[in-house]
Parts: sequence; C-alpha cells; structure tokens
Amino acid sequence: MDKEEPLQKLLDYLAADMAMCNHVIMDKMKSSVDLVSQLAAHLIVAGGKRLRPLLTLASAHLCGYEQDSNDLQPRHVRLAACIEFLHTATLLHDDVIDESMLRRGTDSANAIFGNSASVLVGDFLFARAFQLMTEDGSLKVMRIVSQASATIAEGEILQMTMQNDLSTSVSRYFEVVYGKTAALFAASCRVGALAAECKSQDEEALDVYGTNLGMAFQLVDDALDYSADQEKLGKTVGDDFREGKITYPVLIAYEKADAEEKKFWERVIEKGEQNEEDLLHAFSLIRKHHAIEATLQEAMVFANKACDALAHFPESELRNLFQDIAKYTVNRHF
Amino acid sequence: MDKEEPLQKLLDYLAADMAMCNHVIMDKMKSSVDLVSQLAAHLIVAGGKRLRPLLTLASAHLCGYEQDSNDLQPRHVRLAACIEFLHTATLLHDDVIDESMLRRGTDSANAIFGNSASVLVGDFLFARAFQLMTEDGSLKVMRIVSQASATIAEGEILQMTMQNDLSTSVSRYFEVVYGKTAALFAASCRVGALAAECKSQDEEALDVYGTNLGMAFQLVDDALDYSADQEKLGKTVGDDFREGKITYPVLIAYEKADAEEKKFWERVIEKGEQNEEDLLHAFSLIRKHHAIEATLQEAMVFANKACDALAHFPESELRNLFQDIAKYTVNRHF
Repeated sequence: MDKEEPLQKLLDYLAADMAMCNHVIMDKMKSSVDLVSQLAAHLIVAGGKRLRPLLTLASAHLCGYEQDSNDLQPRHVRLAACIEFLHTATLLHDDVIDESMLRRGTDSANAIFGNSASVLVGDFLFARAFQLMTEDGSLKVMRIVSQASATIAEGEILQMTMQNDLSTSVSRYFEVVYGKTAALFAASCRVGALAAECKSQDEEALDVYGTNLGMAFQLVDDALDYSADQEKLGKTVGDDFREGKITYPVLIAYEKADAEEKKFWERVIEKGEQNEEDLLHAFSLIRKHHAIEATLQEAMVFANKACDALAHFPESELRNLFQDIAKYTVNRHF
Repeated sequence: MDKEEPLQKLLDYLAADMAMCNHVIMDKMKSSVDLVSQLAAHLIVAGGKRLRPLLTLASAHLCGYEQDSNDLQPRHVRLAACIEFLHTATLLHDDVIDESMLRRGTDSANAIFGNSASVLVGDFLFARAFQLMTEDGSLKVMRIVSQASATIAEGEILQMTMQNDLSTSVSRYFEVVYGKTAALFAASCRVGALAAECKSQDEEALDVYGTNLGMAFQLVDDALDYSADQEKLGKTVGDDFREGKITYPVLIAYEKADAEEKKFWERVIEKGEQNEEDLLHAFSLIRKHHAIEATLQEAMVFANKACDALAHFPESELRNLFQDIAKYTVNRHF
C-alpha cells in the first residue's frame, strides 16, 4: 500500500490501538481444538485491510473516547476485534456460497474440506464475536451488532435470489449492497461511538457516515471486478461475471444495450452459458456504455454523503482522515 | 409418536407454553426478504421434536418460574424460541458439512443452491437468536449461549478433523459428543433455570442433567444409525458409515475386530472405499461384537447421571417427567 494513502495514515494514527486490537484477536482465537486456532490464525493474520475495526477505533476517538493508558484491552479495542471476527466469519461463509455458485460440478476433495472448515470456523468466529460483546456488557452494542448480523444474512440471501436475474431493479441492488456491506460499516462506526459513551447525535452521524462509506465501497468493488488491473487488485477480476452476479456495472450496460448485446447478457448472466472469450466481450460492452464511470459516479454520491455527515464534528486531524478515507474509497485501485 | 411416550407427556404438560413458543418462532422468522421467511418457516414448522426448547420451558418450571398469565411472550418462552433458532441454525450448517463429505463429485444444481441457502439462513437464525437474547437482556444468558455456540462449532470441527481416523480415542469421541450435542442440551436447561431466577445450585443441577441427557441422546443417535428400522427412524440409516464418521459403535467394533475385520474397517472408513454390500457387512460386524449393546450401555450410564442430578429437586410430577425423558432417551427407536 502506498504510504501516502489515507488508509495508511489512519493506520499510523491508530497504530497503538491496532497493535492492541491484533493482540486481542490473537488471544480470542485460541481454542482447545488445534485446527480452529490454526485456521483462525491463518485467516486473521493473513487477513485484509482491517478497515472495519479501524473504523471502530477511529470512531471512538472522534467521539472523544478517553483511554486509560494502563488498560491493555480497552473497550473500543475489544469491540474492534469483535467487528473483525464478525467480518471474517461472513467472508468465510461467502466463500462457500461463491464457490458453490462457481463450482457447478467441478468438485475436488480440497474444495469439499474447505467448505466444511469455512462454515464451521465462520460459526466459531461468529460465536466468539458474541462472547466479546457479552464481556463488554453493553446491550446497545449487542442490539446493533446482532441486528447488523441479521441484515447481512438477509442481504446475502436477497443477492442469491436475484442471481442471474437481469430484471433486478437498481433499488433492489442497493438493498443488497446495504445488507452485504454497508450495514457492517455502519455498525463498525456506531459501536466505536458507543464505546466513547457519546451523545446519540454523534452516534447517528457516524451511522450515516458508515452506511454511505459502505455503499461507496461496495460500488467501487463491483466496478473493479470489471475494470481492475488483476495484479494491483490482488485478486482475480471477472468473478462477479462468472458467478452471474447482478451488479451496478452490469445493470447499466444491460440497460443501454442494443438487441444483440441484450442477447449476450441474457446468455452469459441469465443462462450462465459462458465461453472463454465472453469475459473480454463483457469488458468491452461495459467500456462502450461507460458503465464503470456511471458506477464510480454513483459511488461518489455516497462518498459525499459520508463526508457531509462529518460536518457534525468539529474540525480535527482525525475528522480530515475520515473525509480522506471516503474520497479515497472511490479512487482506489485495490 | 406414541401418546404414552414421556416426550409426548411433557409436550402435553407444557402445551400452553409450547403454543406460545411456536408463536414467537413464527413472529421472529419474519423478514423483509421473502425467501428467508419461506425457508425459515419451512424448516421450523416442519421441524423436529422441539426437544431443546421443551427442556428450556420445563427447566424454568422445575425451578419455580412464576408466569404472568397476561404475558403472551414470557421470558422462558422467548428463550426457548432462541434455543430452537440456534439449534436449527446448527442443523442447517451440519447439512452443508455432511453433504460436502457425502457428495464427493456427484454435484447437482439443487444441492448447490441448497448449500448457499443453508449457510445463509443458518446465519440469519443465529443472528435472530442473539437478537432474542439481547431483547431478554440477561448477560448471564448471553454468556452461556454464546459459550455454547463456540463449543458447538469447536465440537464439529474436532469431528471433522477425526473423520475417517480409526485411531480416535473414546475420550476424544466423547469430546465431540459433548460439543456437537450435550453443550446445547445443557445450555437449554440452564437458560430455563435462569429465566426462573433460581438459585445457582438449581442452575448447576440442570446443567448436569442437560449435559448427561445430551451425551446419552447422541450415543443413542449413533447406535440407531447402525441398527434402526429405517422407516421407524424416519431418516436413512448408514449415513455415519457412508460419511466415514467415527462413532462409538465403530470404535467398539474396530477395537474387537480380528485382522480381516480391521482391514475391512480401514478400507471403508479410513480410505472411504465403499461398495454397495459394505453397509450390510458393517451391520453384521457391529452385531457380532455387540457394539450397539455397548453403546446403549454407555448411554444408560449418562442417563442415570442425568437422573441423579434431579435428586436436588423436590419430588413432583414434572421431576418425574424429567426422569422419564432421560430413561426413554435410551430406549427410543426414532
């Protein structure tokens, strides 16, 4: 990651907190069953950008969290770890779903074992997340996080039911995006605010910020799957296409398609009949109709809303970082 | 089910509570996503014996729960629904695991869609269970149930790692049985006791009862998979065999096997190489070495421990039903 990137700046700003958070994560992953510790460690240590726990930590500070410097596992840090557990659990379960949809008969023993481990270690992390909240003891936190968990599952199921369905409306698509991504972004921020025992207006402002940041983030994710440089992205592009996922770029390209193009999308997305060269053709149609630009434009609208919500807080270095993160989300290439 | 069976008697005894519990279940399954409501309704309405929520309700009464007759969703009823949600979630995820292990290349679109729905609706029910606990507001309940959830996942993972491994020790097998079954039985009882705001000795006595009942229940389950009349059982027998699961009957039969029989077990369980006639041969070896009797005897030891724990409570019709359930668990044929 580029050192100048806002995410890196926020990581630097919260380096001490993040170190404590990683410590809590390692500690709470311990299990009497070896494979659990091993798999969980692998997943979480190798894990991603830690964006969600970072939002929890940052939100706590934005709301004036007063840290006891002798406390090695302060509240906001434990809640940040809880959020990361929940996120990792949903990622693991996503793998099963995406793999199921992709695999279609090309099974392997490895993929099979992977499925079982993904489901069960996901469940374990989910349970651990709730144990962490129980230790924290705030019913309000539990209400928000358990609600978010239900919303995530509903969002994923909604996505599943509209898989391959090109008649999906944009508002239905946004509903999925809210469920699968924005709900947890919002909860991550809100939980941090609650750790600081802030006013309800602070909490609400951060909820709006997190929701809109999450919407922007997912839209950009969907755009990158049709436009990214595979190496820079660090994962394969075209996954959504192969799975027949309905995302914003596809909805735009399909809306603007001529009769022949419509037939193409119906074959590859609705019927799931794909040849090797179809992905490149999809890329060219997406380019032709400026579907990536339209998606990023929509993402920018959400990012701006996220920034607007920050006006509630007095100016500060941290508030600026929150703003930069929102803008950067739309310009990222990872 | 035979009207005279203790389970039916307990259902009759708690008919009003169970009616309320079913109502809470229907109510909390509602979702803005149609498929969630439909799948959840199908699962829970078609659902099993409701043994676990029944234990919650019965435990509350055994501890002298005082019911407000005007309250249509009393505490113990909501907690019983929460336990049923959790149980159904684990069943759904079990399906994915068992199916993965069984399927091995014989994929179907239906099985694939089933996997995704099972994972996600399981997650939804898990989240709903935590929402119900949050509404209830008792941190002690949350601690017990989130701990049980983690233990269940650990037990299932342990089971997965010892799949096909005939060198598994009996104590390791019992660890799995505790995790996959007894932990939730114990939590079901304990949560009912907590709803009644009982003394901690009552809670502990019911924890011991639930744990041992659960151990007995799972041992009998494992025995039935090698001995039951398929029609009476209402599900296929031989599933454990086909999946290469290590259960008590297999451990006994393998321990007592001669050289040729050992080779048989190693081929079918360790290598997973099974022919059509192998299940019948396994049945005959299990019979030859009285492995079912040994399993049921072990189950009886646990059932007796469960009954012993009840001595803590004064004699009553309900206490007798708890006793009958424990004994009946060992003699059931379903």
